[in-house]
Amino acid sequence: MDDVKRLNIRQGSYTFAEKKDFRLESGKKLGPITLVYETYGRLNAEKTNAILVCHALTGNAHVAGRLSGEKASTGWWEPVIGPGKPFDTNKYFIICSNILGGCSGSTGPGSIDPRTGTPYAMNFPIITIRDMVNAQHRLIIGHFGLPKLKAVVGGSIGGMQTLEWGVRYPRLMEHLIVISTTHKLSSQAIAFNKIGRHAITIDPSWKGGSYYGTSGQIKGLGLARMVAHITYLSEEGMQNKFGRERVSRKSMFSFQEKFQVENYLDHQGEKFMQRFDANSYIYLSKAMDLFDLTRGFRNLDAAVKRIQAKTLFIYFSSDWLFPEYQSADLIESFQKNKKYILSYKIESKAGHDAFLIEHEKLNPIMQNFIDV
Amino acid sequence: MDDVKRLNIRQGSYTFAEKKDFRLESGKKLGPITLVYETYGRLNAEKTNAILVCHALTGNAHVAGRLSGEKASTGWWEPVIGPGKPFDTNKYFIICSNILGGCSGSTGPGSIDPRTGTPYAMNFPIITIRDMVNAQHRLIIGHFGLPKLKAVVGGSIGGMQTLEWGVRYPRLMEHLIVISTTHKLSSQAIAFNKIGRHAITIDPSWKGGSYYGTSGQIKGLGLARMVAHITYLSEEGMQNKFGRERVSRKSMFSFQEKFQVENYLDHQGEKFMQRFDANSYIYLSKAMDLFDLTRGFRNLDAAVKRIQAKTLFIYFSSDWLFPEYQSADLIESFQKNKKYILSYKIESKAGHDAFLIEHEKLNPIMQNFIDV
Repeated sequence: MDDVKRLNIRQGSYTFAEKKDFRLESGKKLGPITLVYETYGRLNAEKTNAILVCHALTGNAHVAGRLSGEKASTGWWEPVIGPGKPFDTNKYFIICSNILGGCSGSTGPGSIDPRTGTPYAMNFPIITIRDMVNAQHRLIIGHFGLPKLKAVVGGSIGGMQTLEWGVRYPRLMEHLIVISTTHKLSSQAIAFNKIGRHAITIDPSWKGGSYYGTSGQIKGLGLARMVAHITYLSEEGMQNKFGRERVSRKSMFSFQEKFQVENYLDHQGEKFMQRFDANSYIYLSKAMDLFDLTRGFRNLDAAVKRIQAKTLFIYFSSDWLFPEYQSADLIESFQKNKKYILSYKIESKAGHDAFLIEHEKLNPIMQNFIDV
Repeated sequence: MDDVKRLNIRQGSYTFAEKKDFRLESGKKLGPITLVYETYGRLNAEKTNAILVCHALTGNAHVAGRLSGEKASTGWWEPVIGPGKPFDTNKYFIICSNILGGCSGSTGPGSIDPRTGTPYAMNFPIITIRDMVNAQHRLIIGHFGLPKLKAVVGGSIGGMQTLEWGVRYPRLMEHLIVISTTHKLSSQAIAFNKIGRHAITIDPSWKGGSYYGTSGQIKGLGLARMVAHITYLSEEGMQNKFGRERVSRKSMFSFQEKFQVENYLDHQGEKFMQRFDANSYIYLSKAMDLFDLTRGFRNLDAAVKRIQAKTLFIYFSSDWLFPEYQSADLIESFQKNKKYILSYKIESKAGHDAFLIEHEKLNPIMQNFIDV
């Protein structure tokens, strides 16, 4: 049995049908744009119980539940959404849309460019976190016609979108839940994203981005994922999980014989190549690099000053991709601006990905905050 | 003017001319083997003033000084070796040999396999840190006929060799200087090495290792170096050096426009592709992964118990590739075994590579130790 009824899952596709194309932060135009989304639970009569979940880099709109033919618990934030869970589907109406630039239905580099009839590929324009948020805004206002969101929520690049929502549309939500994120990437985080893009673009199978319809696997995309995975875990977490264990007890003096951690990375790379689009990875990681909440403002305080929502800010002790000092800067700016902010540092060895794992600690904090 | 006279630099090549081939830790045989080395200063009559310097992953025997036709200061540890420097060429006779498996003259995967007349490539056997040390041992004893070394010194993978020297040949040196190293890699460090090897082996130009004589650049080797470079620096060091500065003031909405840190990595990758052999990188990084000082012993204490030399142990606060807890484990083992050890944690933002940079702090410590 699938969860379509239990969670009242609805999948939809919204096309911006306005007369004008969608205008990007770069000044370029893109359109018509399609956003694909899912919803969970029911919208109340006053349209005041909607929560927008912003997904992370390689996530998608399918946040929770199991659809026909899917494996058990395929939603990426399954422990958070459902009856009795922090985002209780008996109370709230949860919306999640695939981000602009992605490869799960919303317009991205793999979509057909209406001017040419072929995929955009690397002719897709550079997009930003702000563009993603502006697209979601059209979905929320233009399609659903909501006066105000109960909350906007997201972790990692989803947290960047959440911050951008708070600054750009300060009166459109009651709560912000900002998790495992930063207002701008550090030099090291940009460096890791650069490695991922470089791995793809030096792969001859990438063909300058015009690989659609060709059969070669882009192994560079797998490599990008493998590097990223190291940054999503923590040193201690990896040590505890894999140590120096080997795959077998065969002789170590062979390249066939691997350490468990090598096997894990190989597996992650393989899985990712099957499910993700290489050009989307390039565009989305670039959007992360370019994200700077302060762009167009004098400084961080001037940006944060615009936020009106009550904000819950959560970060994890072992997240070294978005390190603690960045969280401290953001929290300090909220406090300086006398904004309503609850901040939690959760002790965890799960690294950056802790927001997908540490539900025992994370869920009660979110539930208490949202139910007030 | 070059430094050949001033530092009394001599270059040489030693071939193992014994009847038997060189026996590897794996049990396989390899031979005949060539080791290429340089020396600085003069060996005294008693043959007691020799210091063996063990180089790091991509280093070579050319530790100091400038040879004809070279750029100024091309030796990789220039500030350490020379008159009045910690390893004073007026007092000491410094020896450094290219490691087995490398690509700077000593036998490695790019060398000609005498059985086939073509390069070994991936038919080269897996080698270990112990093999590197055993080869150096033949150079020191068989070629130079030294009764005892004044010191064995090295950082990173050179530090691994230094530890191995101390455990395998405990009566053959007075001092060990062990810098920025560990007795076995963590899971995360293995993961980063794996990424480097994977980047090379998925590159079609690598041709299964048989690329010698072909013209294609192995861009995967450049990528391996780029990833490694992130691990050699520190998050704070990168942030201070590059921040979020961009290469130009052109529009950021283009893949041509890069952050400075991206440009730096591109440059490091390009340089490395010109000078290093991809198969050597595979074999040497594997040797690092397999290094475990405790192999063949009950535990770390049982291995360290064998060491007789006075040991100087230096590590740097921001080295996250070989993290502090690993240094603490090693130091504790020396102390438990009541071994002579001086340990220094040097505050630095230079990361793992600090042993090549922080000479103002590093040099006096080494000089005081060795001159006693």
